[in-house]
Amino acid sequence: MSIKFKNANVLNKDFDILESQDLIVENNRIKTIRATDSSDDSKYERVIDCNDNYLIPGIKNSHSHNAMVFLRSMSDDLPLHDWLQKYCFPNEAKLTYEDIYYFTMLGIMENLSSGVTGSMDMYLDSYAMADACLAVGFRVNICDTMQKFNKKIAPEEYYLEFNNYKGDNGNLIKYNLGMHAEYTNTEELIKMMSDLTHKYKASFFTHIAETKFEVDGCKERWGGLTPVQVFEKFGLFDYGGGGYHCVHIEDCDYEIFKKHDCIAVTCPGSNVKLASGIPKVKKMLDYGLRVAIGTDGPASNNAIDMFREMYLTTTLQKVTNDDASVLKPKEILKMVMVNGAACLGHTDGDVLEEGKLADIVLIDVNKPNMQPRNTFINNLVYSCGKQNVKLTMVDGRILYEDGKFLIKEDENYVYKKCNELLHNLLNR
Amino acid sequence: MSIKFKNANVLNKDFDILESQDLIVENNRIKTIRATDSSDDSKYERVIDCNDNYLIPGIKNSHSHNAMVFLRSMSDDLPLHDWLQKYCFPNEAKLTYEDIYYFTMLGIMENLSSGVTGSMDMYLDSYAMADACLAVGFRVNICDTMQKFNKKIAPEEYYLEFNNYKGDNGNLIKYNLGMHAEYTNTEELIKMMSDLTHKYKASFFTHIAETKFEVDGCKERWGGLTPVQVFEKFGLFDYGGGGYHCVHIEDCDYEIFKKHDCIAVTCPGSNVKLASGIPKVKKMLDYGLRVAIGTDGPASNNAIDMFREMYLTTTLQKVTNDDASVLKPKEILKMVMVNGAACLGHTDGDVLEEGKLADIVLIDVNKPNMQPRNTFINNLVYSCGKQNVKLTMVDGRILYEDGKFLIKEDENYVYKKCNELLHNLLNR
Repeated sequence: MSIKFKNANVLNKDFDILESQDLIVENNRIKTIRATDSSDDSKYERVIDCNDNYLIPGIKNSHSHNAMVFLRSMSDDLPLHDWLQKYCFPNEAKLTYEDIYYFTMLGIMENLSSGVTGSMDMYLDSYAMADACLAVGFRVNICDTMQKFNKKIAPEEYYLEFNNYKGDNGNLIKYNLGMHAEYTNTEELIKMMSDLTHKYKASFFTHIAETKFEVDGCKERWGGLTPVQVFEKFGLFDYGGGGYHCVHIEDCDYEIFKKHDCIAVTCPGSNVKLASGIPKVKKMLDYGLRVAIGTDGPASNNAIDMFREMYLTTTLQKVTNDDASVLKPKEILKMVMVNGAACLGHTDGDVLEEGKLADIVLIDVNKPNMQPRNTFINNLVYSCGKQNVKLTMVDGRILYEDGKFLIKEDENYVYKKCNELLHNLLNR
Repeated sequence: MSIKFKNANVLNKDFDILESQDLIVENNRIKTIRATDSSDDSKYERVIDCNDNYLIPGIKNSHSHNAMVFLRSMSDDLPLHDWLQKYCFPNEAKLTYEDIYYFTMLGIMENLSSGVTGSMDMYLDSYAMADACLAVGFRVNICDTMQKFNKKIAPEEYYLEFNNYKGDNGNLIKYNLGMHAEYTNTEELIKMMSDLTHKYKASFFTHIAETKFEVDGCKERWGGLTPVQVFEKFGLFDYGGGGYHCVHIEDCDYEIFKKHDCIAVTCPGSNVKLASGIPKVKKMLDYGLRVAIGTDGPASNNAIDMFREMYLTTTLQKVTNDDASVLKPKEILKMVMVNGAACLGHTDGDVLEEGKLADIVLIDVNKPNMQPRNTFINNLVYSCGKQNVKLTMVDGRILYEDGKFLIKEDENYVYKKCNELLHNLLNR
């Protein structure tokens, strides 16, 4: 398949704009980026006239629980503990493969509509998640959610199976070693995971320091150690990786993350809504940490909207640091593109360059919120929204265009199916 | 003109949902809301099948400088003082009537795409602003921006002219007495404005306590008085009104606002981006104040997106009060509908009821971010965005539908014109 985007402004690897370009995709890679030239239009299976709109690299959602769409707006305005115990856990205990398959698919659709081409997804049934991603053609890094309550603990089996999957779209799937969190695991499980990271020289991701309650509890359980210190003590970060949330990490933790070049994945939308705290992203950058951004699950967020997360990541730092100049747009774009690609392990999908993966988004600036055309990247971070996503391409295939999903299942069928499955789940 | 919306779920005055309703608009009012009945479809000039989507009252943007779209993304990441002195003031000094007319029109279009049916707008050329609103058919309350640097200070003339305007769409325009701020006025001007509020028994609005710098300066200038105290001392709030921003109001100020039933208009997006501070909305509600929400100008925000403002208004209170349960969706909806209508002085445009103004928005829930259909009002506040605004009706006329603006000027012409005007402005 060869597709030519013509008359486009292209966001390059330095996050500057190349004006009036053609970007040519062959199979799943970017073949050429060059000045616009219509003379060879007939060579391509499809020519998309971008009409002076903007091509950007796909946005990466570095932490999500996509299937948690089913709990969206069911249990808001509750303290974290009530929310988890009364709504999340009891309902999650009833989930079937089919539930997770369709709920993940709905979550993927929401990602696509937000210009997201890949996510690091953590949830309960890796097969259902993988099958939904394969069916849609979405890029995913499934992160193991090992915890002591799991029915099946088989990280090694999953790690080998999904990282070596040879079926259709198999290149889209990766599997990451990980754990749900310190407070949901035992020392035995932590040691088992440590053995695996060393056996495979693999990176490790986990929820970490999301709430003060978690950190305080950890210190009680582990003789004063923070969650980051606990995981480092057992060597979990010896091959890198990172942590989700990092709201309440302490000075010693910043040092550990720096030492292992770990990625701190910030999820500001979820953190403010659950009143967990405002992550100290400016401080992370001052320590030289790599920061990526995620939406967390739509049960807590409640949207999968990476534009909102980008906006929150910068503005919350401006107001809490009393300095409007911190976290400029280029720093934010690096988080959701380059660092996000590193999180997902698909590092050749980070920027728009010849030879890179064709994970591409077309942003429509012919809407009031992107006019007049002052500084595109500022508009992208401070004003852009889902209404500006004209097209989302993953691995060379267009999965979303002009508000329609070009995927195997009809979108209205997915909505109907998800509502039915939810109804059945609540009544069993 | 008679329009029938059928098969709709209607958000009623208590912010509960009436399912499967018809809502019939005659001229500029809601004539009937009743259970769906297709038998009389042929009676109406247009029948819109809502397909089980949701009708909500128009959202009110209670503080904006719509024409400031021209500065959007031109001067971000600067401290407030540099931003004002280096970019805003020098460029604003060059604005013509035509500039403000088209920039206001672009701002109105952005409001419409966000489900906003009316705004309280404060800017430099009341005639240009009014003409743009009249041309589009948008509801506006122009607030006087009296300040000592103005070329023309004529609040009484404007107040009488615009509140008695008899031309086409004249019912859409109101004029409010107001001042830019304490720090941009003299005692003489404050006294002049006080005389006017008393002469016309009129409410008064102004920027107030936006930054700590402003409050500290005011105290120096006025022997320890806060801006709220200064305005009260001169009787400006004797007939009500309110203040924009209210980030740094103090205990004495809350008491004054309560005493005069003033409305505090919070603009969280602008406040966080300019690092002005996080407004204490929970405390305002605890004091029993009426709170409304505005976007402020798109130069600082940088979007006119009331969904983002609603989300920020609640989540910033959750995280700063360390309590996920505060500011529930119904409280937020009251702010942007009932209290917003009070700000605009169009109080019969507050909710969907028979006899009320036909300021109506159709929300499309057949998008991933509003599925599954758990709790509509939670989705509306925590997940909804511009992509869900299917139709915006102001005063019985559809001005925005399916992404298109049904206004006098072609939308692409407005974009082109605004870019040209901006180019000329920067080069003169």
